[in-house]
Amino acid sequence: MGGVAIVGVGMTPVVASSGKSLTGLFVQAAKEAIDDAGVDRIDAVYVGNMMSGFLQNQEHIGSLMASALGQEGVPSYKVEAACASGGVAMNAAVKGILSGLDRIVIVGGVEKMSGHTTPEVTAGLMMAEDRLKVATSGVTFVGLNAMIARAYMQEYKVAHDALARFPVMCHENALNNPRAQFHKRITVDDVLRSPLVADPLRLFDCSGIGDGAAAVVLAPMEEAKKFTDTPVEVAASSVATDNLSLYQREKTTVFEGSRKAVGEAYKRADLSPNDVDVLEVHDAFSVLGIMALEDLGFADKGTGARLLEDGQCGRDGKLPTNTFGGLKARGHPVGATGIYQIVELTLQLSNRAEKCQVADAKVGLSQNVGGIGSTVAVHILRSSKR
Amino acid sequence: MGGVAIVGVGMTPVVASSGKSLTGLFVQAAKEAIDDAGVDRIDAVYVGNMMSGFLQNQEHIGSLMASALGQEGVPSYKVEAACASGGVAMNAAVKGILSGLDRIVIVGGVEKMSGHTTPEVTAGLMMAEDRLKVATSGVTFVGLNAMIARAYMQEYKVAHDALARFPVMCHENALNNPRAQFHKRITVDDVLRSPLVADPLRLFDCSGIGDGAAAVVLAPMEEAKKFTDTPVEVAASSVATDNLSLYQREKTTVFEGSRKAVGEAYKRADLSPNDVDVLEVHDAFSVLGIMALEDLGFADKGTGARLLEDGQCGRDGKLPTNTFGGLKARGHPVGATGIYQIVELTLQLSNRAEKCQVADAKVGLSQNVGGIGSTVAVHILRSSKR
Repeated sequence: MGGVAIVGVGMTPVVASSGKSLTGLFVQAAKEAIDDAGVDRIDAVYVGNMMSGFLQNQEHIGSLMASALGQEGVPSYKVEAACASGGVAMNAAVKGILSGLDRIVIVGGVEKMSGHTTPEVTAGLMMAEDRLKVATSGVTFVGLNAMIARAYMQEYKVAHDALARFPVMCHENALNNPRAQFHKRITVDDVLRSPLVADPLRLFDCSGIGDGAAAVVLAPMEEAKKFTDTPVEVAASSVATDNLSLYQREKTTVFEGSRKAVGEAYKRADLSPNDVDVLEVHDAFSVLGIMALEDLGFADKGTGARLLEDGQCGRDGKLPTNTFGGLKARGHPVGATGIYQIVELTLQLSNRAEKCQVADAKVGLSQNVGGIGSTVAVHILRSSKR
Repeated sequence: MGGVAIVGVGMTPVVASSGKSLTGLFVQAAKEAIDDAGVDRIDAVYVGNMMSGFLQNQEHIGSLMASALGQEGVPSYKVEAACASGGVAMNAAVKGILSGLDRIVIVGGVEKMSGHTTPEVTAGLMMAEDRLKVATSGVTFVGLNAMIARAYMQEYKVAHDALARFPVMCHENALNNPRAQFHKRITVDDVLRSPLVADPLRLFDCSGIGDGAAAVVLAPMEEAKKFTDTPVEVAASSVATDNLSLYQREKTTVFEGSRKAVGEAYKRADLSPNDVDVLEVHDAFSVLGIMALEDLGFADKGTGARLLEDGQCGRDGKLPTNTFGGLKARGHPVGATGIYQIVELTLQLSNRAEKCQVADAKVGLSQNVGGIGSTVAVHILRSSKR
């Protein structure tokens, strides 16, 4: 592919309760990205968000955000794909530039989850699944992921403590990220002793509830150097879906959407898993972090946790993963998460990741999942320092 | 522009209460479009919808609809822009094909408004405006449009009976459309004597509440003849925004978003208002139908109603308008409306509009409005019979 560059990034801290409106969150991240790029006008606004209709009774946030940015007039789009809203909005924006109809574009993800009870947010998250056939059964979104975890542990004879290494690693990484939601070192024992949420998943297996927004400015590659000395190339942008619901699948311990999206992305970028220097995966639950390592081609099925045991996913390892803390510890404001991943990879590839920086990162890959693996957005980014 | 063709269309009837689910509605229209195109597989699904999160507690409907169509695996997108969700989804799909990343695409709009009280639907529609600054003031969406109508009538000295000609024309046209929501001839007196909704707007000035879905299959122009003898070219696809809220504007009787979107569309298609043979405008309220005729370049400000007085907008006039009944009489299932317009124009331009057919239509233009003119999508379609 090629042809599209990231020329500016911005993000708010992820916090449990920001005291900001949906608009305030988005504008903060978007203005930071616009300032970072040094652009004065943009040609289009893409907004990724999942729950504003349900939680804030606010739709039409494409126009709302364009207007709030003082960019009224430009085309704007709200793109929704559950927890993959950010990644899918990024993909739509990349298409916009490749179509020749957009030039300088801002794409941001935002979610405000504070100000609501946990049952309300739980009901909101379940909108990712089929309302009529699954949600009304009473199962929660965590419950569905617990079924995946149980099946995974049984099928591959993997113990809970192996899965628990994922959140432990994320919490370790987040200590270096001032904008992370959690700054707290945890151990495998802490995970295993934390309160049960949905058997076998415990509290520290699960990402939290938070407010946040992240944004990037995109430009055609040939114009990128006008805005920054360190543009990052979007080497591939892929979206794939699967059957929406878990009950429709023959196998629950593989996300075929991840395999399809990443297969297309490697092909477009002409790269393989061996080329990836830094990785951001969608660890909404510990088991999903481990499964991602497998479905994206870094480990055989059932062996993902071994990469963590071997230290390969650490900052000094072969495959530094979730270097800013991932969904578990940076936080997971759902519609924003896919853009946080892009922002963090961009900082890594332009050598601006500060305390989170990994050495010599040239290629980064992100995986953003909506629903139960029902939508997967994969991006491969490449440094322009070669 | 050019490069994209419509090769299949489908739509459900618009009815007050369909007894169908959101998925059932979408699948019915999409399967009709897929059958019409004679395609067996598609490469992407774009869904326009406004209120599924609020009314059905269902998000992630891109994946839901792809899965329900048996097309799981393909990339899918939910695009939301209030009542312009359909038109903006169409624009995003056009960009998808022009980007080179999509080939055969289905884009559908769907809205299920039944099963809820009128106050609930009224609250849902108000999500198009700023929740914190406007919606909480207590004004309704009809109320905001009533302010526009009052300002228009005062500024241009236009009487209510002149505006009322618009719904009268739409109801006349809908008599020929078996899928229209209303089959009832009305007079200007009927409009003026109908119950007051928000002064000066009366019941027959306002589009109703209904369920519906419409869909089109798009393909690159060079492949279109594989699927149909009568492909219709997307000669231009434009989206523009304005300040989200009425209070932010200097003038309330012009929609600058319409002017901007249509100006870009005429330029891209290298056409002018004189070239338009058939027109579909967003007459959610009678005053908006009249304003559209002006903002799109067919009449000077304040004189739109004269086109109706002169009979120019009738089926045998110079500018046949809302030939299937428009929002007022075909119906306005909000997220679907923009796609109904595209389907109806396509039928006109491929000489398949049956009793609604106008003679020798080569160029069609649609205008789909989200919020108070805050987002406007304009499409110019061109017949391949030349």
